[in-house]
This record gives sequence, C-alpha cells and structure tokens, in this order.
Amino acid sequence: MDTLLVREKANQAIEILREKEVDAWLTLVRETSAGGDPILPLIYGEAFLTWESALILTRNGGRIAIVGRLEEEAARQVGVYDTVIGYDESIRPHLEGIFERLQPKEIAINTSLSDVYADGLTHGMYQLLLRYLEGTPFAGKLISAEELIAALRGRKIRTEVARIRTAVQATDTIFRRTFAWARPGVSEKEVQRFMQGQARESGFELAWTPENCPIVNAGPASPIGHTAPGDLAIEPGQLLHIDFGVRSDGYCSDMQRMAYFLRPGEKKAPDEVLRGFETILRAIQQAAALLKPGVLGKDVDAAARKVVTDAGYPEFPHALGHQLGRQAHDGGGLLGPTWERYGDTPLRPVEVGQVYTLEPSLVLPEYGTIAVEEDVLVTERGVEYLGAPQTELILR
Amino acid sequence: MDTLLVREKANQAIEILREKEVDAWLTLVRETSAGGDPILPLIYGEAFLTWESALILTRNGGRIAIVGRLEEEAARQVGVYDTVIGYDESIRPHLEGIFERLQPKEIAINTSLSDVYADGLTHGMYQLLLRYLEGTPFAGKLISAEELIAALRGRKIRTEVARIRTAVQATDTIFRRTFAWARPGVSEKEVQRFMQGQARESGFELAWTPENCPIVNAGPASPIGHTAPGDLAIEPGQLLHIDFGVRSDGYCSDMQRMAYFLRPGEKKAPDEVLRGFETILRAIQQAAALLKPGVLGKDVDAAARKVVTDAGYPEFPHALGHQLGRQAHDGGGLLGPTWERYGDTPLRPVEVGQVYTLEPSLVLPEYGTIAVEEDVLVTERGVEYLGAPQTELILR
Repeated sequence: MDTLLVREKANQAIEILREKEVDAWLTLVRETSAGGDPILPLIYGEAFLTWESALILTRNGGRIAIVGRLEEEAARQVGVYDTVIGYDESIRPHLEGIFERLQPKEIAINTSLSDVYADGLTHGMYQLLLRYLEGTPFAGKLISAEELIAALRGRKIRTEVARIRTAVQATDTIFRRTFAWARPGVSEKEVQRFMQGQARESGFELAWTPENCPIVNAGPASPIGHTAPGDLAIEPGQLLHIDFGVRSDGYCSDMQRMAYFLRPGEKKAPDEVLRGFETILRAIQQAAALLKPGVLGKDVDAAARKVVTDAGYPEFPHALGHQLGRQAHDGGGLLGPTWERYGDTPLRPVEVGQVYTLEPSLVLPEYGTIAVEEDVLVTERGVEYLGAPQTELILR
Repeated sequence: MDTLLVREKANQAIEILREKEVDAWLTLVRETSAGGDPILPLIYGEAFLTWESALILTRNGGRIAIVGRLEEEAARQVGVYDTVIGYDESIRPHLEGIFERLQPKEIAINTSLSDVYADGLTHGMYQLLLRYLEGTPFAGKLISAEELIAALRGRKIRTEVARIRTAVQATDTIFRRTFAWARPGVSEKEVQRFMQGQARESGFELAWTPENCPIVNAGPASPIGHTAPGDLAIEPGQLLHIDFGVRSDGYCSDMQRMAYFLRPGEKKAPDEVLRGFETILRAIQQAAALLKPGVLGKDVDAAARKVVTDAGYPEFPHALGHQLGRQAHDGGGLLGPTWERYGDTPLRPVEVGQVYTLEPSLVLPEYGTIAVEEDVLVTERGVEYLGAPQTELILR
C-alpha cells in the first residue's frame, strides 16, 4: 500500500480546500472494482470499496470515511481517515448526519464537463446523492470539485516527480536500446515486442494499454494515430517514429523519439526530413520557453502550432501537450487549442509542480511521421526537462 | 486483442436489443484510460478511447463508432464496427447526424441507480450529451440501458463460462496446496504470500486487489470483512478461513474454503464448529436447489438466510451471492436481501447463463469465521457447480 503518498496527498487536498475556500469535498463511490473514481488512488489508495462509500475531506482538516461495515478495518488501514463509520443497510443517515454536523456552505463533488479525472461521479450515483439529500439544505450546496482535483492531481509532490523521473529515464534507456537494435526489415510489431520485452526485463509496467504501447510508425504507409503496430517493416529512406511510456510505482512517462534509416550511400537525412525535424524541435523549444506558472495552456499550444504552420506544414490535429502523472493523459489543464472536444481545459493557468508533455507533430507524405515528445516539470522559473531531450535526428 | 469474444458479445447485444425492443444503445465515453465505462471490454475490447467517443449498436444490426480521427484505425481493428467515423473538433454533429438517420424511438444510455456495471456514464458526460442533443427530439428519448447490460454481462457465452471454469479450477488447486502447507504458527500474511506465489507460478492474475486477495482469517481475533491479512498466526483449536480468486483470460473465480486446526489429542473438530460448518453447507445446498431461471434473487437469499437463522445464528450482514464474470463482483441481479444499499438488484429474475457465488457465513466467537463460497452456473434445469464444492471441513 502506498500509505505515505496517500497521506501526503490527503494533506495537500486539505490545503487546497483552504486555498479555494471550499468547506467540504465529497467523493461518493460504489463497487470500485468496476473502475471507480480516478481520484481514489490519491486519497484512498488501491484498496477496493465494495458498497456505497463516502470519503469526505474538509477545510477544517476533517477526514471522514463512511464505508460498508465489512470494510471499516480496511478504511482505517488507509491511514488517512480519523473518523471511519461502518454501516450495514444504508449510507444515507450517516451521510446526512455528517453534513448536519459540518454544516458546509459548499460541498464539492466529482463532476466536470471537461476533465475526465474530475468526473468520477456517475450519473446514477449523482441521482442517488440527490435522493439522499432530498429535503435537506445540502442538495442546494453541491458544486464541482474540478478545480480542487485539477490542483491535487496537477501539483506533484516530490515523491510523484521522482517516480515520473524514474519512468522517463527508464523510457530513455529503452529507446536507446531499441534504436541501436532496429534495422531495415524489422516490422512495427517486432519493434513493439522488443520494447515490451525491455520494459518487462527492467521491471516496469507499460504506461498504457499494451496493444498500442509503444505505437510504432514505420514509414509513410503506417496509419497515423493511436493504432496497434502492424506488419509494415522499416525501410531505408524512411522514418521510424515511436511513442512509448512506462509506469514506475504508479507514475507514467510518455515520450516520442524518431530515427531516419539511410539509403545505401546516403550520409545524412534528406533536407526535407531535416527541415521537418528541426521545425518540430523549434516548436518544442518555443513551447518550453513560454511554459511558466500563470500562462494559459492555449497560448503555449498556439505558439508551438504557429512554428509548425509558419514553416508551411499543416497544423497538427491534436493538442501540443497534456499533463502526465498517474496516467499518461492525466487530465486538468491542457496545452491545447480551444476546440470543443477539449472543453475549457486549454483556458486554465499553468501551475508550479505540473508535469506536461510537449509533442508537436507533422507528416511528410514520402517519409512518415515527424514527432518528438518531451516530458517537462513546471517550476517557479520555467520548465525542467525530466530526461535528456532528443536534439538530433537519430540516423541508422 | 480479444476480437472473437468481443464480436460474439456485440452480436449478443444486438439480439438483446431485439428481445427488449430497444432501437439504439449508446455508450458515450472519453479518455477511457481514466477507468472508462465497465461495458467497454465486452463491446470494444481493451484498447483505449482518448477523445469523446460514441459506440452505437442498433436493433437493426447497426454497429457504429464515432471516435477521434487518430483512433479511427484502432476502432476498425476491433472488428465489430462497420461504420467508423473519425472526427477532429467535435463529436456533436456526427452524433446528431447518426440519430437523424436512425430515428430511434428510444436510446438506451449507461446509467443506473442500482447496478454499477450499467452506470458507466459519468454525470459530466450525461450533461454533455444533453447539451449535444439540445433542440433535437432525441434528448427526450433517453432510457436506462441497465436491463440490456445486465443481460449482456449476465448471460455468459460458452467462451466466458470456459474461462471462469478454468479460474475456478486453478483456485481449487491453489486452495488444496495452501491447506496442505498451512500449519500452526504461520501468519495470515504468510498464507497470503504463499497463495499469491502459487497464482503467479501458475500464470494467473489475482481476481481482485492484491492487498486483500486472498482475505485470510486466522481464528476469532481476525477482523471480519474485506481487510488485508495481518500478523495473527494460525493456532490449534481455531479456524482458518480464506477468500480467494484468480483471473483467467479476463474472467474471475471467487471462492471461500476453510479448515480447523486440531489441538493436541483432538481427533475431530468440536461439535460447535461442525454444527456451524454443516449449517453453512445446508444453506448453500438450499440456495442451489432453489436457484433456477425465473426465481428472484431475494427469494434464494431468504431461503439460505433462514437456514442460518433457524439454526440459531445471527443473519449474515451481506448478500448470499453475487454474479461472477469479468469481475469478482460482476453486477446485475443479486442473490441478496432488499436492503437499501442493494437497490433493486435482488428483485431481478435469475436467467440461464448467469454465474453466481453462494457464500453464506457465520461467526463463532471462540473459533473464527465459518464461510464457504461456491461458484455455480445457472442452466435450464438448475445449477451446475463450476468446480468441486467443499463438502467436508478440512482438518489439520
């Protein structure tokens, strides 16, 4: 159990409640083996909650868990909740009793239009909650916890940064081995198998679903996007592009690296390839220079996007970067354009302690995908790369 | 990828839409690496969906996926969806266009007050859906998919039953080895470590979170319920009770077995222990005799519960049994009492193809927990045990 981390994050949550002036934060779940609420690993750990359960953190430092009687002891073992209430038949009277006692002016719940990680409350559970609070003053006090959760997930504590750094460094090592080993004739699937084997041998889990971790694109015929590697083989005169990440103690890396395979007699990559690669590097550098506490995600995205379009390439059909943490796509503020599918996440100010990917891309119809992805930490002064960035196109 | 299974389950879903006379079923998700909707493994497989995505199955056999452009190819690779629409900026016009074309009288969505597995739609996504459908006739046509989902998860196809059977048999083997190895002085934690090692060596994942898989109760001082094993050691004159399950190709077992440790000179367990054990066996047999297609879960629960209370023991503070499948607690109809925390799940009729646990329990203050848990398949004629049931108290 990750008791220390969970305790530190719960303390941080209470600080954030004070900062945002929210009296109480309610996480209401049931049978979390079905998926549960993505906030649970940060405030409860990995143990399952089987029956309807309420975790309440308050601005005054209250840490209350209402759980099925058979999970009372497990809730105590979490080490965060000093009030643990076990119930047999219904959570309702206990929930009401707690709110009667606390008299919160606002109760934040895990619902959000634009942030999946702040939207763990299902519609069914929301309706149950309204039913439980019917006839009380508390039904009218519900607000979204999205700002709290974005702050809690986003502002990494030292332990979290250290775990991401470990994941980044392991990924870097695996990339180096992979590009040293890869040669013309090797298929995308074989590259995937090699990298997954390397991760397994070094004792790391994959950062996302094995089918497309890594994503491997050999040359221009490879379908772009989140697809599984296929039977296409690496060919001289083409690009090999790989998107990969591992998980270290629950925290992820997410990186892209690329190489050009020389044709017989070629000494360097074609100018068109070099120009594309340098454009992507410049877009990343431009973004990294702008990425500071207080800037809006959309402005960082726009600056990198402009480097790519000013160079005459079409704009990339995705955000410049996302936050990284327990998940490769960790929610909260996004370095992205204000497209409907991103909701309001590109409008949030960047904060100290957040970890972002920077991953502009372009496609050269004759050579393949050009994309590099770096993982960076936002500090008081700007960004810190969590691993050595790719500064040269790998030639093989 | 589990392509064949997903294809068969998608076909079964369309049959169920016909049977229940529902025109269209919409699964609306985003960034499923955050947990996603628990129905996805059955109708989409294990690949993640990053952007807002809609999977629509229709009574007329339509299989439509609207996904972010970069996941178009991955959606095709699922092998279920013959219409795959990739979008860049917003899912809204595509969703509306599909419904305009289909003109469904009802659209089932994944929301449920009482079944967590039919409640995958978050409250935020529900609100987005209402916003997308605003001003169209479709907002008024939303109904709960809970009956569809309960049927689809509950009615196991042959492949699913075979996988559960494999998990049950592996669990049975691990139990036999564990009880042969266990001896006084061994702690709950050591039992857990032994069993997890056995699972790993046989190549099976655990059926639920490692912290309490297995749950181990050595004697009467062990806390009851879903807690992690502790430092208590097995003692002569006490019971050892274990709740354990493994996962085989995505499908779980969930079983309880128990032993009595003889004191020096004892040849058999004390009468009080034997009487408790036989009561639990009779409760299971009573439930198994009643468990037939059409019976209500609450009636099966009540019959087993009555065996226990008629024998003078307090009633067990949990349901008699739950469904088993991709999860150890698989949702849908429950063999349980009509307590508020179970919603309406004990009122659902039992169906052919469902797999249930039968797990009555009682506690003897001097000896510990008495509980046995069997996994059974509902057939046309009654139940089939998926492994050999425990019929004798193990003596050590």
